[in-house]
Amino acid sequence: MDARLERNKRFVAEFYDLIINQKDYERAKAYMGPRYRQHNPLVKDRPEGLREFIEYLKTNAPDAHSEIVRSFAEGDYVILHVHSIRRPGTRGRAIIEIFRLENGLIDEHWDVIQEIPADSANPNGMF
Amino acid sequence: MDARLERNKRFVAEFYDLIINQKDYERAKAYMGPRYRQHNPLVKDRPEGLREFIEYLKTNAPDAHSEIVRSFAEGDYVILHVHSIRRPGTRGRAIIEIFRLENGLIDEHWDVIQEIPADSANPNGMF
Repeated sequence: MDARLERNKRFVAEFYDLIINQKDYERAKAYMGPRYRQHNPLVKDRPEGLREFIEYLKTNAPDAHSEIVRSFAEGDYVILHVHSIRRPGTRGRAIIEIFRLENGLIDEHWDVIQEIPADSANPNGMF
Repeated sequence: MDARLERNKRFVAEFYDLIINQKDYERAKAYMGPRYRQHNPLVKDRPEGLREFIEYLKTNAPDAHSEIVRSFAEGDYVILHVHSIRRPGTRGRAIIEIFRLENGLIDEHWDVIQEIPADSANPNGMF
C-alpha cells in the first residue's frame, strides 16, 4: 500500500483515539482543518462542534471507549470500522466513520451508527 | 487509481444494484462466493440468506431503492456509502456497506444502518 495512504490512516487513527478514548480536544484540534465539516446529525459543525461533543462525552460517558476493528484508505479518504462502547459491559454500537483530508488535515466527517442487537440471524457478529 | 480496485468497485456496484434495486437473485448469485459470510444481523448466512432477503424486499418493500453516494476500495475490500429509501417519499437511511472479495467473487459483507433524522445539529446532511 501507498505510503501516503498508510500515513493518512495512522493520522486519522491518532485523531480518533484522541477524541473518543483520550477525550483530549486540545491535542485533537491540531489534526483538523479550519472548516471540519460535520455530517453526524447530533454534532455541530466545525472544530468548535467537536469540542462540545468531547465535553459531552467527558460529562455523560467518561468511560466511552472505541476500538478500530479495520480501516481503509483511498485518495484523501480514510474509513474506520469501529466497535464503540459508551458504557462498559454493554454490547455497544457498530460505527463506520469516513474522514476526508485536505492539505494534510482532517476537513470533513461522516458516520453511520447502529446499536448491536442481542440476537442475530447469523453466527458471525457485526464485525 | 489501480485498475483492479476500479474493477472491484464496478463489480460490487453492479451486485448491489442487482440486489437492492433490481431485486434479482438469479443474476446477483453469480457475483457471490460459495460462503458469502453475512454480518448484517437481520440476514441469514450464505447466498441462500441473501435470496431470502431479496424475497423479503420483493414482498415488503417492492419500491425500495438505494443510491451509492460514494465508494472506496482498498485491497480486496470495497466500501459503499449509500442512501437507502425503503418507501418513496421518506427520508430513508444512511448505510455504509463493506464487501470483501476473494478469488474475484464477493465473499463477505458487513454494514451499518442508521435512520436519517428529521433534525440535525448542522446544515450538512448525512451525505
